[in-house]
Amino acid sequence: MTAMGKGGEALRARANQEAFRRLNESEPVLVDILPAIEALPGMTRETILTSGPALPWKDYIGGQRDAIIGGALFEGLAPDRAGAERRLAAGEIKVDGCHAHACVGSLAGIYTASMPVFVVRNDTFGNVGHCNFYEGTNPRRLNYGVYDEGVRERLLYVNNVVAPVLRDAVRAAGGIPLKPIIKRALHLGDELHSRNTAASLLLTRELVPHLLALARGGRADVEEAVAAMTADHYFFLRLSMAAGKATADAAHGIEGSSVVSAIAINCRAFAMRISGLGDAWINGPHPTVQAKLFDGHTEDEITWMGGESTITETIGLGGFAQAAAFPLQAYQGGSPEAMVERNLSLYKITVGENKDYQIPFLRYRGTPTGIDIFKVLETGIVPVMDAGIAGRDGGQIGAGVVSASLDCFVSAVQAYRERYPA
Amino acid sequence: MTAMGKGGEALRARANQEAFRRLNESEPVLVDILPAIEALPGMTRETILTSGPALPWKDYIGGQRDAIIGGALFEGLAPDRAGAERRLAAGEIKVDGCHAHACVGSLAGIYTASMPVFVVRNDTFGNVGHCNFYEGTNPRRLNYGVYDEGVRERLLYVNNVVAPVLRDAVRAAGGIPLKPIIKRALHLGDELHSRNTAASLLLTRELVPHLLALARGGRADVEEAVAAMTADHYFFLRLSMAAGKATADAAHGIEGSSVVSAIAINCRAFAMRISGLGDAWINGPHPTVQAKLFDGHTEDEITWMGGESTITETIGLGGFAQAAAFPLQAYQGGSPEAMVERNLSLYKITVGENKDYQIPFLRYRGTPTGIDIFKVLETGIVPVMDAGIAGRDGGQIGAGVVSASLDCFVSAVQAYRERYPA
Repeated sequence: MTAMGKGGEALRARANQEAFRRLNESEPVLVDILPAIEALPGMTRETILTSGPALPWKDYIGGQRDAIIGGALFEGLAPDRAGAERRLAAGEIKVDGCHAHACVGSLAGIYTASMPVFVVRNDTFGNVGHCNFYEGTNPRRLNYGVYDEGVRERLLYVNNVVAPVLRDAVRAAGGIPLKPIIKRALHLGDELHSRNTAASLLLTRELVPHLLALARGGRADVEEAVAAMTADHYFFLRLSMAAGKATADAAHGIEGSSVVSAIAINCRAFAMRISGLGDAWINGPHPTVQAKLFDGHTEDEITWMGGESTITETIGLGGFAQAAAFPLQAYQGGSPEAMVERNLSLYKITVGENKDYQIPFLRYRGTPTGIDIFKVLETGIVPVMDAGIAGRDGGQIGAGVVSASLDCFVSAVQAYRERYPA
Repeated sequence: MTAMGKGGEALRARANQEAFRRLNESEPVLVDILPAIEALPGMTRETILTSGPALPWKDYIGGQRDAIIGGALFEGLAPDRAGAERRLAAGEIKVDGCHAHACVGSLAGIYTASMPVFVVRNDTFGNVGHCNFYEGTNPRRLNYGVYDEGVRERLLYVNNVVAPVLRDAVRAAGGIPLKPIIKRALHLGDELHSRNTAASLLLTRELVPHLLALARGGRADVEEAVAAMTADHYFFLRLSMAAGKATADAAHGIEGSSVVSAIAINCRAFAMRISGLGDAWINGPHPTVQAKLFDGHTEDEITWMGGESTITETIGLGGFAQAAAFPLQAYQGGSPEAMVERNLSLYKITVGENKDYQIPFLRYRGTPTGIDIFKVLETGIVPVMDAGIAGRDGGQIGAGVVSASLDCFVSAVQAYRERYPA
């Protein structure tokens, strides 16, 4: 029993069960693909969204700052880097956090007005989450702090080829339920954060009838869209993230709940939102990293540019489903034994076992779902998250497992106790 | 050291290394889809092929006998069951074993002249293996000893819709290398015998550009072919089997080798061919069965109708790759721990670890490949095989793991010693 007393504990337990129920009963459905300006609440032509709690412009550093500037250039909001910095400093170009606009950012997580976003509706609770598109297999990407002619071309390729084909297929399908895909993908070696290979194939499979219809209608670029969807392990991540946002938001705002409803990183901090503590972010230091780096890179290059793909861990995927994805070891290092052990330990800090997301190796046990800040503090076990690793000079330089700092949970419990005194 | 002496052991070891090398270096490629009459050596309009060593007609019993009769009716070789039995008894319809015609049979394994077969060429060694098509998800299937109007319709659907679309796509692709698909599928939860979910998706993915081109050309039935390919866990099995036949045949006929080059079952016996012992079959009793039955079925219904999908185990897949396919437990029973233990034990009876077929959970260790009859006899560890389970009244009634009887290996070693006296 904690200092807050029995009544408080009972309230919290009930509230956490409700949060857990909502995480479980959410039914994310991909309903459309639209430009960010049309889809995201509060988005404007002069807004750039980026990962993590919003910072004053002057506080953005390194790759995340470069990524925001790159976004301004891509969107044509300034003629050059100096011009972009001037307009950003003057507030003519507004920077805001993704979460405030019903979306989540991968790594630096840059959204500009023209970028297409997946629109994922939570059919059970009615809320909507969004995510923009994977830029492709090249490690030099805007969301990893790089902007040059190649990045621009690949972003335009997404805007002009990949997204329109998928949009038409998704509309023809009348929406694609994502939970069945995620559920099956967990049986096919994905954990839906750093590995989305099977989910990308399954999504493609769902769209085949509609892709064939587009081909019959004379559409010439369908192959290219399919190639983009299945090129590697990452395409479906953005759908997993949008589904995560749509799911986690449904569990946010429950009076008395100590369940984590969002995890977000910016260049300065690791941050969480707690279901029962409103929209404020609770900050802590950056996670520790166990990475496997691509050839030619070294640990001293590792840098933080942001990241909100950790929404997957928030709903019981990613690091919370590692034992479903042993192939990850080839990509992000580690051993199957460590993956299993880590996965098992996370049951000690979560409210329950997911009713739909299950791990074959654990005899189809549901994934540990609903991180309770009190359980983290009591056990000292911190959430682990699968993550792409950014390099100081921009670009992806590897992948790995990152572990949250306990400090943030200490602050969160303190904030909870202030908000809900015994 | 065995009784055969050191010289003999050295010969055998060298021969087994050569068999292992051939198993490893085989490169099976799907090059065409053709009617059995055009593809299979020695096939005639009046021939029906079935699994296992060929038996005199009178010795075929139960579901395998029914399946042969069903094949005769499907092919129009007789107007009714009595007529078919008469012609079979008279030898006017010839029955032969699949292996003698460069193909392998699933369960009863019925081939008739008009049935389409996958043509898989071993690009390294030049030989060709074949397999016919999966009949679909209905448990009532010709290869499970059932023939009625529904079975006939589903077979005609394969002949007239599924096979032609795939044939055209495969030809347009200029062939589909199967090893890369099998290799990836092992990272996606398949073991390529009782689970081929990922391989079926990957094959579909490879064919997408050509399927889209067919759609553009006005072909209306492409969706149906894709639906058949991805309906469940089994479509790719026939390709895994054809690849297995093309691979195992390349390792057959090596002077002095004690490696198993084929495993085949008929209604009477379990049988093996050994690389260094020519084309004769060595017979033994049927395997023991650990099955998970579909609802409403009981163990006393289990029956043997034949089966040559065990060619997958011969090349290091199926039961020899169970630790790649934990989702199998939902289908055929067992626990992940038992699957791992069983898989590990098989390294003790094989020549080496496959260079391409790897198991993520075992830290990407190659699958145990090349069953050595001497190692089986020395250790008492027998090959385990994943298998569909047939019911006495026809149809599939479940799936499970079957274990070979040691007796057959005793006979094989005896035959080896007679052929290669010290």
